[in-house]
Amino acid sequence: MRKLLFLLPVVALLVLASCGGKKNAGLPLTTDVPARPAGQEDMLAFAAPAIDTVRIGFVGLGMRGSSAIDRYIHMEGTKIVALCDVRQECVDRAQAKLAAAGFPAAAEYAGDTEVYKQLCERGDIDLVYICTDWVHHVPVALYAMEHGKHAAIEVPAATSLEDIWALINTSERTRKHCIQLENCCYDFYELNTLYMAQQGLFGEIFHGEGAYLHCLDPYWDQYWNHWRSEFNRTHRGDVYPTHGFGPVCQVFNIHRGDQLKTLVAMDTDPFTGPSVLRKVQPEVADPDNFMNGDHTTTLIRTAQGKTIQIQHGVMTPRPYSRLYQIQGTNGYATKYPRQGYSFTPDKIGDAVDLPDGYDGESFLSEGQMAQLLETYTHPLIKEIGEVARRVGGHGGMDFIMDYRLIYCLRNGLPLDMDVYDLAEWCCVGPLSALSIEHGSAPVEVPDFTRGGQDKLHGYRHYYIQ
Amino acid sequence: MRKLLFLLPVVALLVLASCGGKKNAGLPLTTDVPARPAGQEDMLAFAAPAIDTVRIGFVGLGMRGSSAIDRYIHMEGTKIVALCDVRQECVDRAQAKLAAAGFPAAAEYAGDTEVYKQLCERGDIDLVYICTDWVHHVPVALYAMEHGKHAAIEVPAATSLEDIWALINTSERTRKHCIQLENCCYDFYELNTLYMAQQGLFGEIFHGEGAYLHCLDPYWDQYWNHWRSEFNRTHRGDVYPTHGFGPVCQVFNIHRGDQLKTLVAMDTDPFTGPSVLRKVQPEVADPDNFMNGDHTTTLIRTAQGKTIQIQHGVMTPRPYSRLYQIQGTNGYATKYPRQGYSFTPDKIGDAVDLPDGYDGESFLSEGQMAQLLETYTHPLIKEIGEVARRVGGHGGMDFIMDYRLIYCLRNGLPLDMDVYDLAEWCCVGPLSALSIEHGSAPVEVPDFTRGGQDKLHGYRHYYIQ
Repeated sequence: MRKLLFLLPVVALLVLASCGGKKNAGLPLTTDVPARPAGQEDMLAFAAPAIDTVRIGFVGLGMRGSSAIDRYIHMEGTKIVALCDVRQECVDRAQAKLAAAGFPAAAEYAGDTEVYKQLCERGDIDLVYICTDWVHHVPVALYAMEHGKHAAIEVPAATSLEDIWALINTSERTRKHCIQLENCCYDFYELNTLYMAQQGLFGEIFHGEGAYLHCLDPYWDQYWNHWRSEFNRTHRGDVYPTHGFGPVCQVFNIHRGDQLKTLVAMDTDPFTGPSVLRKVQPEVADPDNFMNGDHTTTLIRTAQGKTIQIQHGVMTPRPYSRLYQIQGTNGYATKYPRQGYSFTPDKIGDAVDLPDGYDGESFLSEGQMAQLLETYTHPLIKEIGEVARRVGGHGGMDFIMDYRLIYCLRNGLPLDMDVYDLAEWCCVGPLSALSIEHGSAPVEVPDFTRGGQDKLHGYRHYYIQ
Repeated sequence: MRKLLFLLPVVALLVLASCGGKKNAGLPLTTDVPARPAGQEDMLAFAAPAIDTVRIGFVGLGMRGSSAIDRYIHMEGTKIVALCDVRQECVDRAQAKLAAAGFPAAAEYAGDTEVYKQLCERGDIDLVYICTDWVHHVPVALYAMEHGKHAAIEVPAATSLEDIWALINTSERTRKHCIQLENCCYDFYELNTLYMAQQGLFGEIFHGEGAYLHCLDPYWDQYWNHWRSEFNRTHRGDVYPTHGFGPVCQVFNIHRGDQLKTLVAMDTDPFTGPSVLRKVQPEVADPDNFMNGDHTTTLIRTAQGKTIQIQHGVMTPRPYSRLYQIQGTNGYATKYPRQGYSFTPDKIGDAVDLPDGYDGESFLSEGQMAQLLETYTHPLIKEIGEVARRVGGHGGMDFIMDYRLIYCLRNGLPLDMDVYDLAEWCCVGPLSALSIEHGSAPVEVPDFTRGGQDKLHGYRHYYIQ
C-alpha cells in the first residue's frame, strides 16, 4: 500500500542507480554531489573571530528550546537577545524564566512561521539557536547564515540531501558555523569512552553501534501541530539517527582519518504507527497508510573496512536504549541495556587491579570501572562535570554541549562538531529511506567534504593553550 | 587483496543476479532452487515410526562429540552402538566413558575420514549423531540417510546452498529425519521467552536479534587440523549463525506462518584474523589473505514485514553474547549483555505485582521476573529442567536437546527441528557471503519447503497425549 506512493522516486532513482555504480550490477545507488562553487572553501577546522559576549537569538521555544533557556541563564559570556516562537505563550514562558533569573526581557517575535526572519535580520545577534520542528530547521538556519549569524540546530538538522547540501554550501560561502546540537556526544559515558578510545584502550576499533529506541507514547501529543507523528507518517527510514550515530562517528574519526562509504537499511512494517496516529491525529483520513516502520536498522561501512550499525524505534514500549557499543581488537564497551567495559589486561593493567588470568572476556566489576575512570575520565568532565550535573539537562550533557559551543565561539576556536558532521549524521535519514525503497539496496554515502577527507587527523576538542 | 579470490564466483553470481530479480534493478540477487523430484514429498511435520530403543552411532568424538557421550550415558531408551573418529585416541576416550558408566564397549571405527561409511552401513543403528568438523557434516549425513539412518548434525549442518539442497532432497526421498543439533533453542531463557511469545505476552513480535560473539582464542588450537580457523580463513559471511538465529526463528514461526524473504549482510575487514592464523597455522604462506571479517552483521526481512538481525564475531576479546533480543508491540526481552524483560501492564498484570504507573518502559525487577516465571516457565523446563541442570552441558540445554530428540523418536513424533529449519538457519552462511561479495546487495532467501509455507501454523513441540 505505502509502496505505491514511492513509485515516482523509485523510478527516478533507478535512473540514478543505473548511471551510478556500473561496476557492481548497478550498485551501489549513488546520489548527486553538487560541485563546490568556484572560490568557495571548505569549513574543516574553521575558526571564526573570537566573540567576547555571545549574543543569542532563540528560535523555537517549545520542548527543547524551553529547556535551553533554563541552561543559558547559567551560561557565562552569553546574552539572550531575542526569543521567537509561533506561539506567544512559549515566548511568555521564556520571558518569565529570564525575569525570574534577574535578566532583562528579550526582544520578542511570535505569531507565524515567518517571524523568525525579523530575528535573523537584527544587527545585535551572533548566534541563532534553532529548536523548531524538523521542517523549519533548514530555512531558519539558511536565513540566519545569510544574515551573518552562526547557526546551531537541534537534531536532526536536516532531513533531505538537498537541505544538507544547502546548509554546507551556505556555511562555506558565508563562513558562518553551521552545527548540530547533538547532546549525546557530551553524555558522561560517551565522553569517557571516546577518551579511552583516543588513549588506545580499545586497540583498533572496527565495529560500533548506536540507536534511538525510545517509546514516544508519552510525548506524541506535545509536538506543535503533531509535527513528529506527521513526519513519521510520511517518511520511511531512520528519521532520528544522530543520538546514536554522532558519538560513534567521533570515536571512528569520520572525515578525520576514516570516511563513510556504503549504507544499507531495512525496516519492519508499521505495526504500531497507525494506532498511534488514530490517537494523536484522528483527523488523518487514512491512518493505515503509515510510512515509518516500527523498527529500522542501518548498516554503514567505512573506507577503512569498519562497520557501524544504527537502529531506530519509537513506537513500542521498551526500556530506553542508545546501545552505544564499541568493539575493538583489545576492548569492548556497552552502555545499554547495561553499562560495561572489558579490555585486554595489557591495556588497563596499570590502571585497574585485575585478577590473575583476566582475559578481557568478562565485564569489569563496579570497583574496577571506578578505578578505570580515575585514569580515564574525560578532561571535559573533570573540568565542568559537577556544574553540568547541577544545572542538568539529560543529566548534564546538554549543559556541557552548550558550554563547549560558547567556549569555542568566545575563544575563536573550531567547534566540536562541524557542518560535515551535521551532513554525515543527518544523511542516514534520506539514504536509509533510499535503500529501503529499493529493497535494501546498498547506497553510496557522498563525501560531504568534497575532497577534504585527508585534511584532519583524528577527532579532537579544541582548547586555548 | 582477498577480493581477488572472489572474482570468479562474483562473475558467476552477476549472471545469476541479472537473470534473478529483474523487477528491481537486478535485485534482489537470487539463487537456483532445484525442482522437487517427481513423487517426492516434503518433510513438514514428518513423523517416523516409533523406535523403542534408539540405537546410536556417533561420528566425530572430539569436542562436541565427546561431551555428547557424557550426556547419552544418562539417556534412557538409547543404546550407544558404535563410535567413530579419525583419531583412535578419541574413540578410546569415549570407550573409557562407557566402561566407567558400566556400559558394554561399542563397535569402533577409526583411522581415516572414510571409515564413517562402515558405521553407517551397519544394520543395527537407527540414528547417526554427527559431531565432525563442518566440512564432513554433509557427506556423513547423506551416507547415513542413504543407508536408512536418521541424521542429527552439529551446527552449522551445512555451509553451502548445494549441500543444503542435497540434505533436503535426500531427507525427503529417504523419509529419514535430517536435523540440526541447535542446543541454544533449549537454553532456559530462550525456552521461557518462546513460551511467553506463544502465550502472546509480546503482542505482535516484529524484530528479533541473535548473535555469536565469542572470542575463540582459547579454542583455535583444539580443532582437529585447525579446521575452524581454516574455514574462517577461506570464507566471508556469517559462518556460524545458528545459535543466535535458530531460537529467534522459532519465536517468529518461520515456515510455520511467516517466511524469510530478503537478506543483506556487511562485514568488517579482518583486523585480527591474520594474527590468529600466524599463531595457530604458521604453515599458511599468506596469512594476510584472510577472508572472514572480525565482525559480520546480517539483516533479514520476512514475508510479514518483520526483521531479524544476526551478528558474528569470534576474533576479539569481549564478554560472550548471543544477544537474543525480542521486540514486540507489547513487550521486550534481552538476554545479553543483561537478562531483562519488559511488558505492558495489560499483558502481565495478573502474574506480576506492578507498581502504579508501570508503563513497560523499564525492566522488571529480579523479584518481578521470578513472579513472571512462576506463570511462564516453559513446560519442558518444568518437566526436566532439574535433571538437565544436574547432567549439564552448557547449563542443561544440551541435555534437553538430546532428551527431546530421543523422546520424539521413541514416540514416533515430529522432531522439534526439521530439515527446513536446518536449511533456513544454515543458509545465512552462504547467502551473507553472496551479499557481501556484491557490496551488501540484497539476496532473496529461497523457499526451502518449495511451496509448503502454508502447511504448518505456529511453532510447536510435539508431545504424546
